[in-house]
Parts: sequence; C-alpha cells; structure tokens
Amino acid sequence: MSKSLPKRSEDYSLWYNELVKRAGLAENSPVRGCMVIKPYGYAIWEKMQRVLDDMFKRTGHTNAYFPLFIPKSFFSKEASHVEGFAKECAVITHYRLKNAEDGSGVVVDPDAKLEEELIVRPTSETVIWNTYKGWVQSYRDLPLLINQWANVVRWEMRTRLFLRTAEFLWQEGHTAHATAEEAIAETEQMLDVYADFAENFMAVPVVKGIKTPNERFAGALETYCIESLMQDGKALQTGTSHFLGQNFAKAFDVKFATKEGGLEYVWGTSWGVSTRLMGALIMAHSDDEGLVLPPKLAPIQVVIIPIFFNDAQLQQISEKAKQIKKALEAKGISVKFDDRDTQKPGWKFAEYELQGVPVRIAIGARDLENGTVEVARRDTKEKAAYPLENIENKVEELLEAIQTNIYQKAFKFREENTTKVDSYDEFKQVLDTKGGFVLAHWDGTSETEERIKEETKATIRCIALDTQPEEGTCMVTGKPSARRVYFARAY
Amino acid sequence: MSKSLPKRSEDYSLWYNELVKRAGLAENSPVRGCMVIKPYGYAIWEKMQRVLDDMFKRTGHTNAYFPLFIPKSFFSKEASHVEGFAKECAVITHYRLKNAEDGSGVVVDPDAKLEEELIVRPTSETVIWNTYKGWVQSYRDLPLLINQWANVVRWEMRTRLFLRTAEFLWQEGHTAHATAEEAIAETEQMLDVYADFAENFMAVPVVKGIKTPNERFAGALETYCIESLMQDGKALQTGTSHFLGQNFAKAFDVKFATKEGGLEYVWGTSWGVSTRLMGALIMAHSDDEGLVLPPKLAPIQVVIIPIFFNDAQLQQISEKAKQIKKALEAKGISVKFDDRDTQKPGWKFAEYELQGVPVRIAIGARDLENGTVEVARRDTKEKAAYPLENIENKVEELLEAIQTNIYQKAFKFREENTTKVDSYDEFKQVLDTKGGFVLAHWDGTSETEERIKEETKATIRCIALDTQPEEGTCMVTGKPSARRVYFARAY
Repeated sequence: MSKSLPKRSEDYSLWYNELVKRAGLAENSPVRGCMVIKPYGYAIWEKMQRVLDDMFKRTGHTNAYFPLFIPKSFFSKEASHVEGFAKECAVITHYRLKNAEDGSGVVVDPDAKLEEELIVRPTSETVIWNTYKGWVQSYRDLPLLINQWANVVRWEMRTRLFLRTAEFLWQEGHTAHATAEEAIAETEQMLDVYADFAENFMAVPVVKGIKTPNERFAGALETYCIESLMQDGKALQTGTSHFLGQNFAKAFDVKFATKEGGLEYVWGTSWGVSTRLMGALIMAHSDDEGLVLPPKLAPIQVVIIPIFFNDAQLQQISEKAKQIKKALEAKGISVKFDDRDTQKPGWKFAEYELQGVPVRIAIGARDLENGTVEVARRDTKEKAAYPLENIENKVEELLEAIQTNIYQKAFKFREENTTKVDSYDEFKQVLDTKGGFVLAHWDGTSETEERIKEETKATIRCIALDTQPEEGTCMVTGKPSARRVYFARAY
Repeated sequence: MSKSLPKRSEDYSLWYNELVKRAGLAENSPVRGCMVIKPYGYAIWEKMQRVLDDMFKRTGHTNAYFPLFIPKSFFSKEASHVEGFAKECAVITHYRLKNAEDGSGVVVDPDAKLEEELIVRPTSETVIWNTYKGWVQSYRDLPLLINQWANVVRWEMRTRLFLRTAEFLWQEGHTAHATAEEAIAETEQMLDVYADFAENFMAVPVVKGIKTPNERFAGALETYCIESLMQDGKALQTGTSHFLGQNFAKAFDVKFATKEGGLEYVWGTSWGVSTRLMGALIMAHSDDEGLVLPPKLAPIQVVIIPIFFNDAQLQQISEKAKQIKKALEAKGISVKFDDRDTQKPGWKFAEYELQGVPVRIAIGARDLENGTVEVARRDTKEKAAYPLENIENKVEELLEAIQTNIYQKAFKFREENTTKVDSYDEFKQVLDTKGGFVLAHWDGTSETEERIKEETKATIRCIALDTQPEEGTCMVTGKPSARRVYFARAY
C-alpha cells in the first residue's frame, strides 16, 4: 500500500473515489462515462449476483436474454417511457467504418446508414414486451416470470464510479400476470427480496416505500423502492420494483384469453438492482483505513499472514497455516494464505484492511510455541489470541458476529440520523447540519415537492410502507397531511 | 407439442431452425440480426457458463468487466485488427433523441452529436490493452490473467440463431505475460480447456489445431482452434485461442520493468467461446424428434411422468414419484415431476423428447403393484422396467452411460466422415457426396487456399496439432507438402 486514504471527515467524495480505486474495485475508463470493474470489485459483484439469482429462482423466476438494441419506433410506443429515457440514450446510426480517403485512419461510412436508428437499451421493457406478445396467448401462459442479467446504457453527464455511470450492469425482472392483484403481489414480493438481500447480505438497513408520482419510473403506475443512508448523511436508492399496470401490454398489444373466454390485456411488473449496490456497500460501512465488507459478500473472508524472520520459521508456520486454511475451507469459508516474502507483514496488514477482509489471522514463531494465533477483526479492529484447537468454529462464529455487528452499526447510524421535524426552518437546519433522513409532513402536491427540491436539494425518498397515519400540516404550505414522508439529499 | 419437426434428411437447415424455436431455445427478434435467448436455451447456456467459469478459475483466472463502447481512435491503433472488424460494426454517433417538430414521434437530436464516434465492442482487445497499460509496470504484475463474460456485436448480414448473430454472448480471456513462451503456453492451455469442455461436457469430439494465416484472428500471430463436425457433414469452429505476440502491447504501449532492470513490451493472448457453442451442441446430437442433450448440460436430467386415470391413482403415484425425486436430487440430479392434468402422457412424452431430457421415468398403477417404473433414455430410445429399489443409483449410472454414448456416437460419426484424399477430383467428389472433414495435402500458400475456397466452398479448418508429418504433393498444384490439413465446408 502506498499513502493513506483521504479522511471521510475531510473530503467524503474524494475518500470514496480513492477507496474504490485503491482497493481494486473499479476505475474510470477513457471511454466517456464508462467504468472498468476490476477483478476484486467484480468478485464482490459476482457474489451479489449469485445470492440474488438464487433468490429469484426460489421465487419461481427463470433467466433469459433479450437484444441490446431497441429500434427507435419500439422505444416510442409507450409515451411516458420515451419521455423519460430519450434525453440520455446512445444512438446507433451506422454499421460500418471505412478507411479515410486522406489516409488519416477510419471514418464512418456514409453509405452504411441504418434505415431506422437503434437505441442501446437503457432498460428493456419495450423490447421485452414486444417479445411477450408472441409468448402470451392464454391464461395458461401466465404468469410469465423472467429475469435478465445485462448491461444497460444511460447517457449520464456527471458520472461517479458505481453510483452513476453511463454503462452499468444490472438485473431486470419483467413479469406478466392475469390480474392486477397478482402483479401488485409480485411487485411487493420482489421489493421484499431486495430488502432481504440488502439487510441480510449487504448488512445495509433499508426503508421500504413507494415513490411520489414525480419520482416514478417512466411508464409505471407505482414505483416501490428501498432507500438506505450513507455515512455522509445522504440517501441512496438501492433498488426499485415497478407495478406497470397494463401500460406496456397496451403499447405492445399483449392480450390473453381468460378462463372465462374473454380477451384481456395482461398486467406487468419490472424490478431491478444494479452495480449501484456496490456503491451502497462501500459507502455504508467503510472507514478511513479502507473497505469494511460484510462476511457474506467478502471474496476473501479470512486472510492468514505469517510473521517470520527466516525460512525455517516460515516453513513451520506454513504447515500450521495450511492446516487452519483447510479446516476453515471445510466449513465453506474462503481463505487466503499470503506467504509472499516480497512484502512485510505490516504492509500486508494495511493492504487487507484496505480490501476489507473481515478476519485476519497472524501467526508468528511465539504463537506456535503457545498453541495460539492472533485473530483481528476488520470491523472493530479488536485483536485477541485464539487457541488453535477448534479455531474453525471460533472463526465461523466470529464471522457471524461481524456480519451482525456491521448491520447493527449501520442501523444505529440510520436511527440516529433520522429526524422528525415540524417546520420548514427546522427542516433546512437539519439538512445543513446533520443531514440524514428527515421525516416531515407534506401536502401531497408535486408543486410543493418541487419547491422543496429547488430550495433545499432534498427530495422525497419515499412514503414508507410501515408509516403510521398521523394527522399534521405540510411544513411548507400548512395544508393538511395524513402522514410523514422520508426526505433526504440523495445520490 | 404441435406438429412434428421437419426431417434432417429432407431439410437440415429448416430442421435446425424449427428445433431451436420449438424446443424453447431461442427465436429471432425484430431487432435486425439479434436473437432472444429463451428461458430453456438460457438455462443450458448458464450450465455451460458455470462449468467454463470454474475451469477458468481453476487455471488461475479472475473475472472483470470492461466498457461496451470503444472510441474509434482506439479501434484503429492495431492496423490488422481494425481492418478485420471495421466492416461490420455498430457505430454510435449521437447521445440523445428529441420530439419531432411535426409531432410524428422522436428523432435523433442533431445537437447531440458525439465528437468522436463510439464502436460497440466486436471484441475487447483494444479497450482492455488500453487499460492494461495502467496495470502493468513491473514483472511482479505479470502474468495478468483476466476473463470477461459479455455481449459483443458484429454486424453480420446473414444471421442464424446461435451460429451467427449480430449480438452474441461470450467470454473473452485477455492475458499478459513476461515472455513469449509463457504466452504460448497460456494459449495452448486454454485450447486444452476448451477441448476438455467440448468433449467431456458437450460430448462433442474436436480436432485441435492452428489456423492458416488467412484465417487468423485480426491482430494475432497464431490462432489455435477447436473444430467439430455437425451431422450434415459441415464443420463448426467451436473455440479459438490467440497468441497475440507483442502486437497489442506495442499498439497501446504496455511495457514492464524486467527482473534484470530492462524495459520490455509484454506478450499477450486472447481466447473465447460464445453462444455459438449452443449451435454445436444442438447440431451434433439432436434427431428428428428433437434435442438430445448430454446429461452434464441438461437443465432437467430426469423427468417423471405419472400415468393415471383418476385422482386416487394420481395421488398414489405422486407419493412414489416424490420419493424418487427426492432420492435422485440427493445425488445432485435435477428432476422435474410433471403432474399436470391439462396434458396427456403421450403429449408430455413428445414434449420432453423435443426438449432432449436425457431420462424419462413413467409410473402407472401397474408399476406401483410390481414395484417397478418404466425408464426410457432419450439417446437410444430404449425402455426398460427398473425395480424401485436403489433406483437412484441405477439412474445415476444410466446418466453416465448416456453421456458416454452420446460422445461415442459423435466420435464414430466423425471418424466415418473424415476422408483422406490424394487428388483434387476426389476432394470435390467427397465434398459433394458425403461431406465431412477431408484430409489432403496443400502447398502452404494462400493463393491455393483461396482458389480451393472459391472453387469448392471448402476452407482449411486447421492444421491439426497431432498430425504426423507425411511427405506428399499438393492436390491442386502438385508442389511439395509436409503434412495433410483438415478441409471442410463450414458454418
């Protein structure tokens, strides 16, 4: 490891960017707005994918793959959808390059112009519903429960690694149902799957809620979301699940013969999470020394580092280290034994701290004599001597304790940074001092929502599903309000 | 199932297209040249991915992800590379649509023209080597062993499901090494990985060889390949592994400090297999009733079908079927119990034959009395009564036998359809009658190779690695030749 990271308290944004790069997670590419996901970052994403994919399959979904390109005419078939995405899309107009006549390299061949332009998918509702038309005839074909793992492109002007990039990786579920009730149940089920994943794997507590009409997905009747809080007091939307009603079915003429012999439009949902989850994972837990990864998503859960001064010592220690590694791996724990002699132990300690490896085991000559090892946990930085006997059980318990502790710490942070306010002045003051979620009354109009956004940069993150009704008055207009909603400045 | 498939003997090409669609593998999309991979087809691809990914990881590779877009200027940095790919690429010129002034929908916004056009990756050497420049400084950073799972686009004019599509899914490995020897060893190792996968999982025998200069990857010094034979006597290239020399290192200025203190360009390789493998899998084994899948890649390995005339029978049979399912699943075998009462057993038999499920177990009331079930294998269509006792072991053995048989059948077919010829007349006659691989002497020149291609549509598939030297004369020019090479008409 080279120099230390910038401190969160001094420059949170710089801390984040440097951490992402130095921990080997991702880097900017010279291709505008696109990132390179580096091997260590991709290994975390692969673990996320595996867990989510299993969850999707357990809830009855299968994977499929649909085209990267969307003809411009499809894109326009659902009016609010094209409105929402047309302003930021990559457009393919030609299909060939040719050598420049002046020998200066290659240029676009004007003779190879497409009759109809193609859009690189920013999301796949249109191309998928166009396909579903051929797949759905009768109620027997429903529900259609399909997911796709894919890359999508939205032409963002201001990008940040993982949080906002022109190209990103995601999964998008697209389902079709016979009734509105079933489609709403699916939308809610997938929101629960996302919340389960965020809380029990990422160790990131979430608020489940619905978006205001202003913040809805372009083409949805209702957008459900999970929102989480980062250490700088800003919110991050970590997943969305949309009830599409019959909008896309009507746009693409997807009807089915009902049991009773009628012909009706099907009801749709779509839901997605993306590599943005990586941003949430990094920002929710990490500290000034580097990443802090929840054990369930850490590519390396335990690193073993030998402390030695000569080859004979290394050999003795290696023997013991390999036994420990084997015993841990038999429990399904992923272990790295770093016996490189090109780097000193102190350098290695710092490197694995930077990478957020949950547990570090150090073994020196004296440990061998004592029959112990030094075990350090990344989250609290506590160290302790563990007897070698049954170490695999002890480490397994420790990993569980770390997973729980990381979640609880984030939960406590969110509780401490969720503030009820009753006046607009107080609202502004909380935003400018501590940030976090602010629970306030709002009159339910888009005008007030937009005014607040303009004046304070805070948006309504969601109307939480578990909010209790509470009579009150809008902090801005004084009009009546039936419940508080979650406000925050957000990524 | 509706009507039966076209016969291979009557129209092989139509048989293939219909099989792919009706078995639920893929379909054409209205997006030019792009396919939709349907859930059952994607499930097979997922199994392939899992096996290959494990193989890559066992040989020391890690996954990463690089941008979808390549700036036109990168693309041009390696001269033969751009020459090879510029004629068939998707070009992005704009980043926004806007509403048409006449209200007729959306049009490309002329004000949102990119300064430099972007190419949708047809392969990622350029964007990856541009990144490697930042990752490689010293011999300690080598070897760099990275793989990517991604979609790529080549603007093919004549497309066929899985075999040739504008967009396809693949993996591309890109490695960097300190010496030419190491890079060549890597190239050969990955060829062996592909051959292992093709033969031991896909049950498709392959010839390992090197391509002639004419058929080399654009930018490679040597292209290794595996070639297999389809049932219609045409060859299919199923995987390639390229030794890139220092071409891309020089184009992107990737140098490393040697142990001895020098500064040298690194040596590169790249290797890939794609959804084309699905085409090989389908064409190598399937018959006029449908798919024949090797058990190791079948999403459903065993289907259990109850034969019943009333609910009481179904209930009794279900109990037994569920026991069998559980016992098989405990052995890691994937089982589907199809107890739908909306379809008759005969319909189900045909449907699972179409889908290539390796083993079908039918259970009727009489079977319950006898303590047996009827077990049918898809590959030979043999049926037998199996006692219920230890059925899970018997079925496990049967699946292994099927895997072996499918391979042996394909191997025998290839042997019978590999012909040595010594004259050009004989060569043409073999091509026009039986097809297959033709082993013939060739004078080693591109001119002769091209003449043969023009006159017979046959290409040199490869110079096999295990070919014995054999003095001879070129069948076309009479010039001396040191070994026979593999010719075939190919996909």
